[in-house]
Formats: sequence, structure tokens, C-alpha cells
Amino acid sequence: MILAVALNAALDVTYGVERLSHNEPVRVTNSSMRPGGKGVNVAWVLAELGAEVAVTGLAGGHRGELIREQLRRSGITERLFQIAGETRQTVVAVAADGTFAEYDEPGAEVSVEEWDRFLRGFGEILDNSSYVVCAGSLPAGLPTDAYATLITAARSRGRDVLLDTSGDALRAGIDARPGTVKINLAELASVAGGPLTDEAAIVGWAEKIQERGVSLVIVTLGSNGAIVIGDRWRRRIRQPVRHGSPVGAGDAFAAGLVASSSDLGIDERLAFAASLAASAVGPHGAGLVDVDLARSLVKDVEVVAI
Amino acid sequence: MILAVALNAALDVTYGVERLSHNEPVRVTNSSMRPGGKGVNVAWVLAELGAEVAVTGLAGGHRGELIREQLRRSGITERLFQIAGETRQTVVAVAADGTFAEYDEPGAEVSVEEWDRFLRGFGEILDNSSYVVCAGSLPAGLPTDAYATLITAARSRGRDVLLDTSGDALRAGIDARPGTVKINLAELASVAGGPLTDEAAIVGWAEKIQERGVSLVIVTLGSNGAIVIGDRWRRRIRQPVRHGSPVGAGDAFAAGLVASSSDLGIDERLAFAASLAASAVGPHGAGLVDVDLARSLVKDVEVVAI
Repeated sequence: MILAVALNAALDVTYGVERLSHNEPVRVTNSSMRPGGKGVNVAWVLAELGAEVAVTGLAGGHRGELIREQLRRSGITERLFQIAGETRQTVVAVAADGTFAEYDEPGAEVSVEEWDRFLRGFGEILDNSSYVVCAGSLPAGLPTDAYATLITAARSRGRDVLLDTSGDALRAGIDARPGTVKINLAELASVAGGPLTDEAAIVGWAEKIQERGVSLVIVTLGSNGAIVIGDRWRRRIRQPVRHGSPVGAGDAFAAGLVASSSDLGIDERLAFAASLAASAVGPHGAGLVDVDLARSLVKDVEVVAI
Repeated sequence: MILAVALNAALDVTYGVERLSHNEPVRVTNSSMRPGGKGVNVAWVLAELGAEVAVTGLAGGHRGELIREQLRRSGITERLFQIAGETRQTVVAVAADGTFAEYDEPGAEVSVEEWDRFLRGFGEILDNSSYVVCAGSLPAGLPTDAYATLITAARSRGRDVLLDTSGDALRAGIDARPGTVKINLAELASVAGGPLTDEAAIVGWAEKIQERGVSLVIVTLGSNGAIVIGDRWRRRIRQPVRHGSPVGAGDAFAAGLVASSSDLGIDERLAFAASLAASAVGPHGAGLVDVDLARSLVKDVEVVAI
């Protein structure tokens, strides 16, 4: 069972509208609601890939209940902990021409007691897990080292972790040495303290993270693919360019890597992850991945040693 | 107990944002959720005025639960009937400069069985009510004469009704002869079949409604006040002009009229209703009424015989 940690789960509401407009009511022609937040998104893709997956994290209020129900209905084991606040909602309105408006709620603040209760339960949940994915931002109220604490707990039980977050939570998390760190270029630049203008600079800074005890560092470059740093090896990945919204592509990459059989070589696993990410690029809010499309894209993904 | 009928209740979500934008995420700085839809809005104002009020209508899903809880917490008697679909949500994002983006979900379709169940329960709810307010649009699935059916049921039990709706539901509702019809200029124009360019035309068409057996016809004219047609009398109302969003002003007018003591003369009641409506004009999504402000505005409202 793969465990996805969703500390800042969200209810993603997507509206189809004829066109976007301000200062007048816009009629929604169709709407959908789906559990979201990066941790949940990774779990969702893992489930679509047929993996056994559980989601733990924090959820509250009526939106929390909606998230729980939808996770269960998708065959995902739901181990979310209750918080008093109402879980955040993101609203994305997508017009017929592809333009969109997105409103992201900040989410409820988590109390010290709620976080403590989560930490006490986390150990038992780990016992039933083979691998842990920590993805997404931290909700207000959590300490910066929240992921670091979870990574340390997982490692002490022999569970490997993939970390995909940003800012101080990322920096603190790296210190706890997760097996894999997935980071985008903007985040790597913020670690570096300035813009990274060429491949050598990206490789250099990614290697610095790797040398701090992270086995695998994946730097995603959007439509330009990814650079992956392992222990004394490096890969440059280029996937077919697809047009549309890249939302969810990073989560699909993480899920693809985690779900791909460890019987495969790392190059094949990276190619599958990249093709799954490419399959998630499409109309804004359309969906996370298209597994059949991803399988057909694999042959067009380049994974080369650099 | 005043009964407000909310067949198309909504959950109104309001976001404060720094500025509106498209094609990039907009961070919500503060958010609030409130039960909405015209029927609920009227009930909300009635409760603020200290009236005993019940809300009946249709609500479903997690948003329906949220609406129920918030109504109860506000001291409103909640008699909403369950529907299978999720209650609609309206999302309004208001920027610091007052511009706004509004997305209105269409709402779930109501089944024939759900409507029948409501109708069977409505009679008993009427028994505990002194006055009925039918306000707002009809959800998909309901017959055009839904309000007409409710008005007939109420009148057969000797309960008077205020009707505030639009389109075919309004036309069918008038045929059932509610005691009061509140209509805005655009709706009166649609009844007339063309634009109404002067006061005489407005009075003429409002009188046609009155002559069909409606005791009181109120034509609201936005910041230009209202024209009221009774049995062989007419009034022109002008209230102080206030700048901002008029959303909810019409519902405040209805509530003010219904809540004002029948010991008062109609002119005093209309003046209070108009001042309450004026007090609801303000920053978009700010709130429905300001009762203290309304009391201070009453002296500036003109109610003159025409």
C-alpha cells in the first residue's frame, strides 16, 4: 500500500462557463467537484494506475466529508484526520476558449492539538504502508518541519519517501533525507538564491541536494522535461510537447515514478513518469492523467545520460 | 411565524481578493459562506429584524447540511426537504477596488418524487405559519406553476403570500393571486412585452397585475426607488441613493415590508422597507442589511401619493 500524505487537502471545484467576465453574474454551464491538493492528486493517479493507495492527512467540515466519500468511492483507503476548520476549496472557471479564472482559498488553520493527534496516528498508518509520498504545501498552523518529522518517522520504520513541496517546508524536509525529492525549477532557483540559466547550474544545485543524502533528485522543467540526479548518474528527460494547462502534470510524474515497477530500470521508470505527466497536460481542469495516452507517448520520451 | 419558501436555496461563498485576474491563480485572502438564494435572504433579514421565521424548500448534499446548520445557528426554524442532488453554490470574488467576479451554479435538478414529497409536507408547515414569502427562481425539474400551487395551498388555509420571482414562474404565480407581488422593472417590462419608458407606463402595467386580483404590486426601480399600486391608491417611493452593489436590496425590501407591524400605515411600512433596502446597498457581498442604518435612513425616504 502506497501512502499519500495530504496535509493541505482541498476540494477542487471546476466550472465550465461560456466566457469569463467581471462585474456581472457568469452562469456556470457544468460543474464538477473532486478531492484535490497535491497529495490527493498523486493518490488519485496512483489509483488510476491500479496501485493500492491510502490517503492520510487533515480534512474538516462538510467539504472534508465530501472528500472522504469521493476517495472511498474511488477505491482509495481514506485515513484523513478530522480538523475543526472547513477544508479549503479551489474554484476554477474555464471558458470555452480555454481562458480560466482560479480562486484558491487559504484553508483553515490547524491547531497544535490536531497536529499532535495526526502525529500519534501516523505511526500506525505507516505500518500498513510500503512507500510514502509527501506532496503539497503545509496548511497554516503546522510547523515548517512538519514534513521533516514525517520523513524521519517513515525512515525509522524503513519506509522510503518522495517529497514534493516548496519553500521552508522543502528546505526542512531535505534535511530529513527523503529518498526522492521532486522539485521544480522555480523552487530549485529559490534554494540556489537566484535564477538558474543553464543546464550546468541546474545540475550543480540539484547535486548539492543529492549530496545532502537524497538518493534521487528530480528537477521538473515543465514542457522542457526534467533533469534527474542519482548517485553518480544523471539523466536528461524530454517528453513530447503538449499544449494546455500543466496543472497536475507534476503530480502525475510523481505517481508514475512511484507506481512503476521497481523491476524496471530507472530509465524506463522515468520515461513512464514523464509520459504520464505529458498525458495530464490538456484543457484546464479536464482531468489528471490519461493512462492509455501515456502508454502511447512512452516511445517518444527521451531519457539520456548527461 | 413567517414562512420563507426557498425552492432554489444556495450556498453563497464570498471571497476577498487583492485583485481579479485571469489565467493565473488568485489567492483568496478571506472567505465566508452563507445560506443564500432569495427565499433564504428574505428569511435572514426577517431574523435580523427579530421576526420569528421558518425556511422551507429544498436542499441536498453537504452544502445542504451547511445551510441547515447555519440557519439553525441564526435562530431560523429550518424545514428544508432533502433532495438527492448537491445544492448549488454561488462564488463571488470581490477585489479591493470593488470589482467582482461572480459564478452561479445552475443547481441540481429536482425529481418529481422530491417535489411531491415537498408538496405533501407543505400543508403541515403552513399550519404553523402566519404569512408566506415565495422568493427566487425555480430549480430545474419543477413545473412552471410551482409557486402557483403553493400560493393556492396557502390561500386555501387563509395565509397571505408575497411573491417575488421572474419569468414564467411569475406569470403563473400571478394567476394564483398572491396578496403581494414584488417585481422589478425588467420583469415588468417582460410582462408588458417591451421597455417601459415612463412612470405612466409602469403604473399602467402594474395596475394590470393588480386588477388580476393581487392586492399590492410593488415595482422596484433600483436606486430610483419603487412604485406601489394598491387597491385604488398608488405611491411613489424615493430613498436616499447609496453607492455599491444592490444585491440583496430587493430581498431586504420584501423582508422590511413583511416584518413591519401591520399597526403602522402602509406609507410607514413602505418607508421602512425602502430604507432597509437602501441599507443593503454597499460593498459587494458585504452583508444583507444594516438595521441601525436603515432606521436612520427612514426619515429621508419619500413616500408620496401619485
